[in-house]
Amino acid sequence: MLMTEIIEKKKLNLPLSKEEINFFIKGYVNNEIPDYQVSALLMAICFNSMTKEETFALTEAMLHSGDIIDLSKIKGVKIDKHSTGGVGDKTSLALLPLVASCGVKVAKMSGRGLGHTGGTLDKLESIKGMRINLTSEEFIKQVNDINIAIIGQSQNLVPADKKLYALRDVTATVDSLPLIASSIMSKKLAANADTILLDVKFGNGAFMKTLEDGKKLASLMVEIGKAFNKNTKAVITDMNEPLGNNIGNALEVIEAVNTLRGHGPKDFETLCVRLGGIILTQANISKTVTEGEKLIKEHIASGEGLAKLKEMVKAQGGDPTYIDNPDKFPKAKIVKPLISKHDGYIKAIDALKIGEGAMLLGAGRAKKEDSIDYASGITLTKKVGDVVKKGDVLAYIYTNFEKFAEAEQLIHDAYAFSDEVVEPSKLIYEVIE
Amino acid sequence: MLMTEIIEKKKLNLPLSKEEINFFIKGYVNNEIPDYQVSALLMAICFNSMTKEETFALTEAMLHSGDIIDLSKIKGVKIDKHSTGGVGDKTSLALLPLVASCGVKVAKMSGRGLGHTGGTLDKLESIKGMRINLTSEEFIKQVNDINIAIIGQSQNLVPADKKLYALRDVTATVDSLPLIASSIMSKKLAANADTILLDVKFGNGAFMKTLEDGKKLASLMVEIGKAFNKNTKAVITDMNEPLGNNIGNALEVIEAVNTLRGHGPKDFETLCVRLGGIILTQANISKTVTEGEKLIKEHIASGEGLAKLKEMVKAQGGDPTYIDNPDKFPKAKIVKPLISKHDGYIKAIDALKIGEGAMLLGAGRAKKEDSIDYASGITLTKKVGDVVKKGDVLAYIYTNFEKFAEAEQLIHDAYAFSDEVVEPSKLIYEVIE
Repeated sequence: MLMTEIIEKKKLNLPLSKEEINFFIKGYVNNEIPDYQVSALLMAICFNSMTKEETFALTEAMLHSGDIIDLSKIKGVKIDKHSTGGVGDKTSLALLPLVASCGVKVAKMSGRGLGHTGGTLDKLESIKGMRINLTSEEFIKQVNDINIAIIGQSQNLVPADKKLYALRDVTATVDSLPLIASSIMSKKLAANADTILLDVKFGNGAFMKTLEDGKKLASLMVEIGKAFNKNTKAVITDMNEPLGNNIGNALEVIEAVNTLRGHGPKDFETLCVRLGGIILTQANISKTVTEGEKLIKEHIASGEGLAKLKEMVKAQGGDPTYIDNPDKFPKAKIVKPLISKHDGYIKAIDALKIGEGAMLLGAGRAKKEDSIDYASGITLTKKVGDVVKKGDVLAYIYTNFEKFAEAEQLIHDAYAFSDEVVEPSKLIYEVIE
Repeated sequence: MLMTEIIEKKKLNLPLSKEEINFFIKGYVNNEIPDYQVSALLMAICFNSMTKEETFALTEAMLHSGDIIDLSKIKGVKIDKHSTGGVGDKTSLALLPLVASCGVKVAKMSGRGLGHTGGTLDKLESIKGMRINLTSEEFIKQVNDINIAIIGQSQNLVPADKKLYALRDVTATVDSLPLIASSIMSKKLAANADTILLDVKFGNGAFMKTLEDGKKLASLMVEIGKAFNKNTKAVITDMNEPLGNNIGNALEVIEAVNTLRGHGPKDFETLCVRLGGIILTQANISKTVTEGEKLIKEHIASGEGLAKLKEMVKAQGGDPTYIDNPDKFPKAKIVKPLISKHDGYIKAIDALKIGEGAMLLGAGRAKKEDSIDYASGITLTKKVGDVVKKGDVLAYIYTNFEKFAEAEQLIHDAYAFSDEVVEPSKLIYEVIE
């Protein structure tokens, strides 16, 4: 089999066989096929896409490029949840303790990632002492003991994706549905939970810019999940406005804690309740989503979700008093209010600009090597649909940088106002199953 | 400027600026831009092509990536001729001495190339002693003295093309009109003759499979030439049937010599006369092509073309008695006739199969490192339109290999017969100027 012929075939829009896809993934991971051939193939895939069969075969080849996590020693239904990413998305931090407190097994591998803020792992590490590198024995034991563990991805989980993603990033071949779907799903399948819930975000702060593209990606990923006999569902949610009020690392943990105390922002709480309701049906704990949602709300009210988060933090070596007393989290030297110059209704808060602002304040990393400032970020005091007067505080900016004019400008530019009444953003658009 | 953004732009079908094209070519030649980014861009170009302005800019950037030959010390009009390549194409060997004998200056740099037989240089080297590596002083002096020299390409002629071509070859990104046209024309422009005549071949033995594609390539190359103020013309010629009767290295030199003696195959002589007529108008020696053709025919009849070839061979250290006595050329151990099993008319002789057969007999190289057997090849004794009887000899196979069944089968399969009268192939389809 010749890689040149495989590239040519895809260029001519002929479907690749399972054997050809396996050959290419194996050869690439083993360094037998060079980057320059793979990037040419990836570009041809960007143009000609892949059939469902090809996408399933690609996912399978990637899945088998490394370890598949063995969760067989964990009793009960293991669930996984994945977000395609957005600004202010701290959902795992509140949702997973909630469902774990309802009896679901959460053996979660999470990432750091590049972006506007750190990933779930970075956010958790803003808690003093928190360990995210458990051995697999520790991981299994903790999930059996307390239903939940959130740790870093195993080094050898889908090495094909690591190589491919790094290459796609520098060859302008990121935005291809089958490549995105196989990248996400191969990792989900390797993490090997019994059920998968995907939160597919669309909007200017998300990777998928339109509802239509979000739906396409969600449908494809659900089909992949089902092809591999996993109970897979997806929720399409809006990411034109940041999720919740806090954007940053420690700031987001604090917001998750507040939500588990019953004092979270309405949009974020709504999302946690809905996703939680679905997960509880996937895990056969609730018969209907409505019943599941009710149970999640009860576990917020009773503080059982909060207790579960605290239990997890403690089990992973973190200081649990951070959860009781959020004042312990690192604090930014500078706190500056963003003042409204308008009277009227907030029409839009551009999630992408807010995210880029947060990154410039120090909350995210542009390159893998960059360090993250846990304390920096943004707190929105108003959201879309809120009425504001000149002089009102729209948001607070937190940073440890002396100079942050560019970030401030971006955040300022994120706002659009209207004289007419504006409805709050619709958050949840569709469930695909 | 970021290469990723340049790739993205081309992927989105936005035209690249001159600066972006310069950045990419310079960076690639200087090893600052890696192969994997360039191959992704090349694939995007295969899909979205390039505008004329982009193609001109690419040609210019490639042209300036290395040396531009200085022919200013040669008096008179310097002409260049290029064939896009085909089976049995020994045109330069007869045509160039002919026009040189008419007073045109031929400072020709030629290639070896991969393919069914060697390139012009390999063919010349089947003459004992022939030197194709002259110093530039020797080269200039020889053209001033005797009007003609054919030598190997300067090492630093369009290094961008060397790198790009090697990459295109292994990434299935060869077949893009702007990439093909800029590759050929950057080298022609760097060789820096005053006029360029392109022989663009189409058909199963050529790179361009259809007349339409041949025309497109020819038009684009002529436009590039004109954009760089070179008198550029193109002739579109058929390559469904091999050109002339002989395919091989020594065999093709012998056919060129025969043609210069007035005993060449009709199709090949016709092509030489037509191309020669055009070149003589480009060099202002003849007023019309018809007048030029007349002069070429006279120089065949008078033996002046042959004398010029002999003069060139002698000047470049070759044994001129080879030209007088073709028996001196290396001879194959095995000579085997291909016998017709049909009565009827020859309908087609598939040039690609004949070419592949010649390569399997030892006449060509698949890889740069492969050696070439000057003696092996094929002589066609019948051509399309000829009437044959069972038992007639269709061709002779020459080889030094003991086993050549695969080659023989390919050559056998090249023939198609008809019971009806078949017209000889039309050779010259169009002149683009």
